[in-house]
Amino acid sequence: MNDPIRVLGVPGSLRRHSYNRGLLRAAVEAAPGGVVVEIADLSALPLYNQDLEGSLPPPVSEWWDRVRAADALLIASPEHNFSVTAALKNAIDWATRAPGSILKQKPIAMMGATPGGLGTVRAQMALRQILLFPGANVLVKPELLVSQARDKFDAEGNLTDEKSRGSVRALVEALAAWTRLLRNGAAQA
Amino acid sequence: MNDPIRVLGVPGSLRRHSYNRGLLRAAVEAAPGGVVVEIADLSALPLYNQDLEGSLPPPVSEWWDRVRAADALLIASPEHNFSVTAALKNAIDWATRAPGSILKQKPIAMMGATPGGLGTVRAQMALRQILLFPGANVLVKPELLVSQARDKFDAEGNLTDEKSRGSVRALVEALAAWTRLLRNGAAQA
Amino acid sequence: MNDPIRVLGVPGSLRRHSYNRGLLRAAVEAAPGGVVVEIADLSALPLYNQDLEGSLPPPVSEWWDRVRAADALLIASPEHNFSVTAALKNAIDWATRAPGSILKQKPIAMMGATPGGLGTVRAQMALRQILLFPGANVLVKPELLVSQARDKFDAEGNLTDEKSRGSVRALVEALAAWTRLLRNGAAQA
Amino acid sequence: MNDPIRVLGVPGSLRRHSYNRGLLRAAVEAAPGGVVVEIADLSALPLYNQDLEGSLPPPVSEWWDRVRAADALLIASPEHNFSVTAALKNAIDWATRAPGSILKQKPIAMMGATPGGLGTVRAQMALRQILLFPGANVLVKPELLVSQARDKFDAEGNLTDEKSRGSVRALVEALAAWTRLLRNGAAQA
Repeated sequence: MNDPIRVLGVPGSLRRHSYNRGLLRAAVEAAPGGVVVEIADLSALPLYNQDLEGSLPPPVSEWWDRVRAADALLIASPEHNFSVTAALKNAIDWATRAPGSILKQKPIAMMGATPGGLGTVRAQMALRQILLFPGANVLVKPELLVSQARDKFDAEGNLTDEKSRGSVRALVEALAAWTRLLRNGAAQA
Repeated sequence: MNDPIRVLGVPGSLRRHSYNRGLLRAAVEAAPGGVVVEIADLSALPLYNQDLEGSLPPPVSEWWDRVRAADALLIASPEHNFSVTAALKNAIDWATRAPGSILKQKPIAMMGATPGGLGTVRAQMALRQILLFPGANVLVKPELLVSQARDKFDAEGNLTDEKSRGSVRALVEALAAWTRLLRNGAAQA
Repeated sequence: MNDPIRVLGVPGSLRRHSYNRGLLRAAVEAAPGGVVVEIADLSALPLYNQDLEGSLPPPVSEWWDRVRAADALLIASPEHNFSVTAALKNAIDWATRAPGSILKQKPIAMMGATPGGLGTVRAQMALRQILLFPGANVLVKPELLVSQARDKFDAEGNLTDEKSRGSVRALVEALAAWTRLLRNGAAQA
Repeated sequence: MNDPIRVLGVPGSLRRHSYNRGLLRAAVEAAPGGVVVEIADLSALPLYNQDLEGSLPPPVSEWWDRVRAADALLIASPEHNFSVTAALKNAIDWATRAPGSILKQKPIAMMGATPGGLGTVRAQMALRQILLFPGANVLVKPELLVSQARDKFDAEGNLTDEKSRGSVRALVEALAAWTRLLRNGAAQA
């Protein structure tokens, strides 16, 4: 049961120098042995519209394949209007339209960075409610809120704050442990 | 203070035969004297990306103009993953990027229809949290949850259930009264 | 329409040196002319049990009378387990059992203090959902989150931080303006 | 790893003929081999007040002992004001003051019954946010909402509706499986 764990990083922001994609790059670098983090690109997904399902846009099936292939997801989203971004909501809504309930029991962790002082706390509460519907196994702790982002990222959106980098590493490790625990527990059942 | 009240109907769904656009058409028909309801089209809005703000897509400024010109908003959204749709979240996120805080103190009411039994109750809770950030004055009551939509709409998504049509009318009237109350109260201040 | 506004301060904490009762005392002192803030005592309310309604405990009817007599409520609650305290929830649950829907359309504002960095933000989100059921008219802005309380209160729980005292004053003024706006708007209807 | 699973049933209502204690009695009867459900009595817990912690009331330490001894909790609460009852919030708040983080990683499931049509859905959303703080491992699915309670319980609050009894059994089984999965997974770590 020591197969490597493939984590798909899911960015909530589409902008180029996004802090939250910076968090995911820090996760890629921090991943311990046996854990690989890759970052998804959500920019080509069209806005969800049920009428599109008859002739599925290729970026949608690619997104489904990446979610399916991942052992776990790591979501990093800004907070827009006290919730997750439209881009992230869109990606999750598309994912729950895939055949086979691809988010069901999927281990998922979340983090977020904001210029202000509350570090996406409300977006994360909203995201937990969203992920409940598809039945994901969302990691309970630790909570990772990165506030005052301007002091912790450089101009390209790279996370430079050492303490925050340590928190990202701890979150990746907790997600990996949670993924292994669920996998091993299920194998015994 | 008896100027007509212009209500902008905001549909959460992009699909053609959407129940929730059917709710809005029912609102158009039910509007009492002195109240006009028109329905916005959100389908041309691109997914929000801060990098687009440098060269604003025309559908965005049109959307801003419609929100600005409205005395009140009436939102009708399906529930996707226990929250509002990505299309609706996207429209709200764009609205909060307009100059001048165009949702601040805006009277807003909400309703929703679902095939199942809970009538978008969780999406509406999520929407209230979302609308808090821009400082909208969201109508408190009545709550309008339309369940078992297949029995209440025809194949084109028109609301045929008389009881539900009455509830839509009551909601439009409550929104108009709320808009007048806030307008008159502010005029006295 | 310039009758004085009587605000009932509602503390979420029962402990003696509570920061949140300290916030309410600051509100009493900060109240501008035409506004009077008094603080309720919730400590004698029994835990809500429907079986008690047959023979109502006297503290319950006293609580009902105070809520009824108030033009507005100002709630100050700690955050316990990402929500309001049991003592506050209990007081609200009792209030919604009074004859005559005494919280309906009642103007209500909220604030909170915590030792940590997030200033009761999650409790306030939870409280907004709670106050929706009875149909209160909860003030939208400003949001008042007092973090790092140990640096801002003295050992008896008095608010000594000048900036926070100014925020309390601004909240009382906003609640008074909201109460007048609703009162004047309703008088015109 | 086939030790019996001891589930502590936690009722949100203090009234005698509570529907929600009826749900818990149905869970006691439905428990499969290897699972024992017992029901806690929360009526003697005083309202939480930090000042009481210096001289702990005996019902509090008894409550702590029962939570500690349980392998899992099964909570059944009415919905009061779109959240859980004050009695349940009080019990949870006391539990999180025990030495040793007794709710951390505790498997917990929830259910609820209401006279109306929405079966405590909002209280359950609120409860999930509450249980996040202490780090409980809350069961994701199935969701158990019992609506129209008057048709499904007898006058003493016993659950007589066969379909609902089956749903209670399925929930107990899912909680037992979740408890075993977490236990076995942790044993491998």
